[in-house]
Amino acid sequence: MLLARNLFEDIRAERLTPRDVLELCAVAIAEQEADVHAFAALDLDRARTAAEAPGLARTPLAGLPVGIKDVIDTADLPTAYGTEAFAGNQPRTDAAVVRQVKRAGGIIPGKTVTTELAFLRPSITKNPRRLTHTPGGSSAGSAAAVAAGMLPLALGTQTGGSVLRPASFCGVTGYKPTFRLIPTVGMKVFSWHLDTIGLFGARVADVAYGAAAITGRDLDLADADIGPARFAVVRTARAHLADAASHAALDSAIAALAKAGADVREIALPEEIEAADAIHPVIQDYEGWHALADEYDNGLLSPLLRGHLEAAAAITPDAYDEARRTAKRARQRLGDLFADCDALLTFAAPGEAPEGFATTGSAMFNRLWTLMGTPCVSVPGLLGPSGLPVGVQVVGRFGRDRRTLAAAAFLERALAAR
Amino acid sequence: MLLARNLFEDIRAERLTPRDVLELCAVAIAEQEADVHAFAALDLDRARTAAEAPGLARTPLAGLPVGIKDVIDTADLPTAYGTEAFAGNQPRTDAAVVRQVKRAGGIIPGKTVTTELAFLRPSITKNPRRLTHTPGGSSAGSAAAVAAGMLPLALGTQTGGSVLRPASFCGVTGYKPTFRLIPTVGMKVFSWHLDTIGLFGARVADVAYGAAAITGRDLDLADADIGPARFAVVRTARAHLADAASHAALDSAIAALAKAGADVREIALPEEIEAADAIHPVIQDYEGWHALADEYDNGLLSPLLRGHLEAAAAITPDAYDEARRTAKRARQRLGDLFADCDALLTFAAPGEAPEGFATTGSAMFNRLWTLMGTPCVSVPGLLGPSGLPVGVQVVGRFGRDRRTLAAAAFLERALAAR
Repeated sequence: MLLARNLFEDIRAERLTPRDVLELCAVAIAEQEADVHAFAALDLDRARTAAEAPGLARTPLAGLPVGIKDVIDTADLPTAYGTEAFAGNQPRTDAAVVRQVKRAGGIIPGKTVTTELAFLRPSITKNPRRLTHTPGGSSAGSAAAVAAGMLPLALGTQTGGSVLRPASFCGVTGYKPTFRLIPTVGMKVFSWHLDTIGLFGARVADVAYGAAAITGRDLDLADADIGPARFAVVRTARAHLADAASHAALDSAIAALAKAGADVREIALPEEIEAADAIHPVIQDYEGWHALADEYDNGLLSPLLRGHLEAAAAITPDAYDEARRTAKRARQRLGDLFADCDALLTFAAPGEAPEGFATTGSAMFNRLWTLMGTPCVSVPGLLGPSGLPVGVQVVGRFGRDRRTLAAAAFLERALAAR
Repeated sequence: MLLARNLFEDIRAERLTPRDVLELCAVAIAEQEADVHAFAALDLDRARTAAEAPGLARTPLAGLPVGIKDVIDTADLPTAYGTEAFAGNQPRTDAAVVRQVKRAGGIIPGKTVTTELAFLRPSITKNPRRLTHTPGGSSAGSAAAVAAGMLPLALGTQTGGSVLRPASFCGVTGYKPTFRLIPTVGMKVFSWHLDTIGLFGARVADVAYGAAAITGRDLDLADADIGPARFAVVRTARAHLADAASHAALDSAIAALAKAGADVREIALPEEIEAADAIHPVIQDYEGWHALADEYDNGLLSPLLRGHLEAAAAITPDAYDEARRTAKRARQRLGDLFADCDALLTFAAPGEAPEGFATTGSAMFNRLWTLMGTPCVSVPGLLGPSGLPVGVQVVGRFGRDRRTLAAAAFLERALAAR
C-alpha cells in the first residue's frame, strides 16, 4: 500500500515529487484496476498536469492523490452516485470537501465506485485481498483503491457502516470523524442526521495526517502522541451475531493492548445506548424517503432501494421524532462512558468479507456509532481463518477525534508488536 | 392577500377549482409583478396544465400555488440562487421540500427572488406595501409575492433572519419551523447548522395549514386549539437597537394579549443565552467559507459576499468549536425558560422596512433564535409611524411547533380584537 504520511515526508524532503507519487498510483492502476474496478471515473492526464503546479510540494497535502467517492460532487469529473440514471452527470460545483482537498494541495485523479446512492446494492468493485470476495460497501472503490496501492488516500461516506465495514474487509484504515467535522455540502444526501464523510488510508497515521491536511485541524499524530490509552471493550447486545473471526480479532486486540500496557476493561453498554441501535433505521429511512424523493418519484432507483423506500414511507413523523429523542438520550448517556476511558473497542464488522457479491456485508456493528456521531477508526492488522483481514473498531468521544486517532494508533502498534 | 386555508376550504367545498385559484394569482401577477419583481422565474402555462390534474382538489394542498425561493432546486424551473453566475441553471432533481409540495398536491408557478445566495446583497424586489422600500431579505420575493396577493403560500429560508425580517417588513406571517422540520436537501447551503426552510402566508392559520399539508405533521390549527397562552417577553440585550416603532409594536402586543386574557410577563434572558447571539456569525461564516468555497475560488461572488467570506477564512476550527459549545449551552438553558411559558415574545425586526434599497435590514432580533433552532413566527397586524407594517415575533420551544403556532394565532386574534 501507499503510505500517505511517508509519501508526504518524501515530497517535503525532495526525495520524491508529486508527479512521482502520481506515477506510483498510475502503475498500480495499470496493473490492478482491470481486476479491482475501484474507479467510476479516472483522468490521469489531467492529474499529471495538476501534479506539475509550482509550489505544490509545500502545500499540506503536497500534491498527494486523493480519491473521491462518487456520491461527492466534482466540477471536473462526472458524478453518477453509483446509478445508471446519473451516468455522465457533471456537477457545476465542487463539494465543500473537494474544495478542501484542492485548497490543501491534493490531486484528484478520479472518482471511486460507490454502491447505488450509498445504499446496499452491491457494486462492481472486487476486494483486492481476494478478488472473489466483496470489498464491502458503500465506499467500495475507496477502500479497494487504497488496499490495492492505487491511491494513498480516498474519501468515503458513512450513513450506517459504509466506511468502517469496507475498511475492515479490505484491510485498510477507515476513519469516520465526528459528525460534520468534514462538511457534507455537495454530497448526495441519504440521511442528513447520519451522513458522514470519512477517510481511507493504509495506517492510522495516514488517515490522521490526511484529515489534518484537509480540515486544517490539529489531528496529525507525532510519535509522542501515541501513549498507552484506556479502553473499554463493548461487545454490545449483538455480540452473538459476530462470527468467530471477529471475536478472535477482538480478543487478540485486547491481549495486544494489555501486553503493551494499556488499561482494558470489558463493560456492558447501558440500556439507553443499546436502545438507540434499533432506531437508527427509523432515522435513516425516514430521511432517505425525503432525500431521495425525486429519484423515487421518477422511477430512477433499483428494485432493492425502491422497495426499501416504499417501506420507509410508512414511518410517521411521530415515530421519527421519538427515534430522535431516543438518539439524544443515548448521546447524553454515552458521554458518561468516556469519564474513565479514552476509547471504546468493539467489532468493526461481523467477520471477514463475505464470499461473492450478493451482499456488501452488514453494518450492524457500525450504525449505532454513526448515529451517536462519534469518531470511529477501523484498525487493520489481524487476519481471519480464511486469511482475509478483520478490523477492530475504536470508538471515541464526540469531538475528540485526536484522542481517538491516538488510541487507534496505539492499538495498531500493539498489534504490530505481538 | 390570498388566504391559503380559506382557499383550500373553498376548493374542497367545490366553490372554487385549483385552476380558479391559480387565475386569482395570475391576475395579481399581471397587475403587480412589473412593479414588485417577486419572481425569478415564472411559468403560468405549465402551472395551468398542472392545475387541471384529476383528483387535485382532494390532496392536502388541493392544488394551491406555492412559490419556491430560488435557493431551492427545482427540476422544471431554473434555479439561479440570486446570482448571475448561475443564471439559467437547471437542476436535475427537485429539492426534498419541492417533492413534498408536489406530493401534497401543491402547484409551483414560479421561483421567488432571493438575494445573492441568501446573503445581504439587496435584490430587485420591492416592498408591495410601499414600492420605495425594501421588502427585506433574503427571502424577498416570497414575502413580497404573498403580501401582494400574488401567491397564497411561498417557501423561504432563514440562516440569520431571512424569513422573519421580510415577513415583518411586508406585513405577512413568516414561520420558521424547528430546525430540520422541513428537509433542506437540495437547498443551496450557506450554513449547515443554521439554514432552515420556512413558510410565508397571509395569517398564522395559513402557514400552519401549509406546513401541515407539506410535512404531514399535525400542525393545522382549529379554532379550539387557540386558547390563552402564557408569554414571556424578552427584549434582549439589543433592545436599545430597536427603534420606537418596534417597541410600540411589542407594547401593543403585550397590551392586546393581556386584554385577551393571556399570561404575559417580562423576563431577562439568562447570560448563557445572550452569549449565543454573539457567536451566531462565527458559526454562519465559518460554514459559509466552506459551503461556498467553489463559488469563492472561481470568482463567482459579489464584492460584498466575497469580502465577507475573506474575513470568515480567518475563523479557526478552535473558535468554531468553541462557538458550537456556546450554542449548545444556550440551547440547554433555553429549554428551562419554557417550563412556565408557552412562547417568548420579542421584536421581529428593529423597525419598519428601511426606505430605499441600500440594505435589506437587520437580522439582529432573529439570528439568536435561528441558532437555537426554535420555531419562530412573525405575526402581522400592527403598523409603524410611517404606516408600514411591524411584526411581532413569537418564539417557541424546540420541536413544539404546534404550540408555537397556536400561541402566535392567539396573538393574531388579540391584535385583531383591539
